[in-house]
Amino acid sequence: MGIDSSRTLKLTIAYNGTRLVGWQRQADGDSVQAALEDALARFEGAPLVVHGAGRTDAGVHALGQVASVRVTCVHDVETLLRALNAQLPDDVRVLHVEEVADGFHARFDARAKTYRYLIRNAPFVGPFERAFVWHVPQSLDVAAMQEAADSLVGTHDFAAFQSVGSVTSGTVRTLFSSRVALESGACVLSLAGPDGRSVPGALLVYEVRGDGFLRHMVRTIVGTLVEVGRGWRAPDSIAQVLGGGLRHGAGPTAPPQGLFLVGVDYD
Amino acid sequence: MGIDSSRTLKLTIAYNGTRLVGWQRQADGDSVQAALEDALARFEGAPLVVHGAGRTDAGVHALGQVASVRVTCVHDVETLLRALNAQLPDDVRVLHVEEVADGFHARFDARAKTYRYLIRNAPFVGPFERAFVWHVPQSLDVAAMQEAADSLVGTHDFAAFQSVGSVTSGTVRTLFSSRVALESGACVLSLAGPDGRSVPGALLVYEVRGDGFLRHMVRTIVGTLVEVGRGWRAPDSIAQVLGGGLRHGAGPTAPPQGLFLVGVDYD
Repeated sequence: MGIDSSRTLKLTIAYNGTRLVGWQRQADGDSVQAALEDALARFEGAPLVVHGAGRTDAGVHALGQVASVRVTCVHDVETLLRALNAQLPDDVRVLHVEEVADGFHARFDARAKTYRYLIRNAPFVGPFERAFVWHVPQSLDVAAMQEAADSLVGTHDFAAFQSVGSVTSGTVRTLFSSRVALESGACVLSLAGPDGRSVPGALLVYEVRGDGFLRHMVRTIVGTLVEVGRGWRAPDSIAQVLGGGLRHGAGPTAPPQGLFLVGVDYD
Repeated sequence: MGIDSSRTLKLTIAYNGTRLVGWQRQADGDSVQAALEDALARFEGAPLVVHGAGRTDAGVHALGQVASVRVTCVHDVETLLRALNAQLPDDVRVLHVEEVADGFHARFDARAKTYRYLIRNAPFVGPFERAFVWHVPQSLDVAAMQEAADSLVGTHDFAAFQSVGSVTSGTVRTLFSSRVALESGACVLSLAGPDGRSVPGALLVYEVRGDGFLRHMVRTIVGTLVEVGRGWRAPDSIAQVLGGGLRHGAGPTAPPQGLFLVGVDYD
């Protein structure tokens, strides 16, 4: 490969957001973008920009974030994978590197994203999962939550579910699926075997897949679903919230640590 | 219950050992024993002593540690469970409290303990599991490790597998089972679904059940099994190590963070 040639790389990244200020580079604090850009710049010998599919907030985790970057360095992808992980902090790992067609852009070319949100619905949170769940000790009506979650599927104006003060060109998004699953006895840490006691109570998993998400949208959906689960609002009130388009129509924003960007789909 | 009555409680406890100095109360640092004793003393109105089944070291975790304590306070067990967890730090949770026959002692009455040790056998460790695995990137011969693990089952003098300088009245112990399991694609954090990429490579789980364990015994067994897996020693050399009774005959002590006390059995 010639010294002036350039190529586009697609990176798949997992990170534990606990200690991080989020995806995007900030003036202060460690971001995933800055960690990747700084590590890649060492091989490139020059600064570069890494584009992520989704801008996750502080405390939010990723199992399969995707990023794109143009590089001129000639290292093969396996060497880059090893070298990047040697440079990156422990809580950010590149899972996969591949060379893709020039012009590929992780955010603009994304067709769908899947997010998962974990709620520990139990008297207390287990000692290994504090940084990965929202603790809701009150009893929840899961059937009502699923009914409300169903009404979000399809193409809607999600303006009521974005953070106050967001400036976005459009607020219409399409959700392909929106499911609440109750995993009794499940442990966030997959360690409790037949001999080990798991945390009493249930783990509630909300999984949503859509063509795009507004800022805080998943967390506001979860905050609203929990209000439905607690009986504070009817499942069919969701349709009115969508129609109203006002942020105060929806529920509170659920805390960040329960949220995981699971994966991003491309054509 | 009269004001002078006393009763014995059996506590089942899970903890994330990352931040802790271990089970036993120390002059400095947070221990599980001190956390429990301090929380219970608030209800008791007087200091008391909590006895644990196993004295786990700094960094070692528990899914089902068991402890016993004599109390005079009259709170029912459900109230105590809630109140204790409200007092305890996030990384120590009491899973269960029950009243047992007077004279029950968590350590002296234990018939068997089960430990699990996690090894991430992959080029790198996932971002959620750093505090819960030993990272061994080199390829491991799992069949050879199982053959070596098998030879530990039964009644043996485990003097070669205890930490140097230990003073113990006896070093003969009986192991009921000793198994190496390879969980391809397994994630310590049970989050990677069909959409989420898991960490490449395998999670190796060593599980051992016995009537008792010497100090550092499980970690020294694991360090020795990994030497077998890497081809540095033959599987049948374990028998010689047991026979020799010398600590330098065995392998290195595996790091603490991969070790979990899974559970304790009583009659």
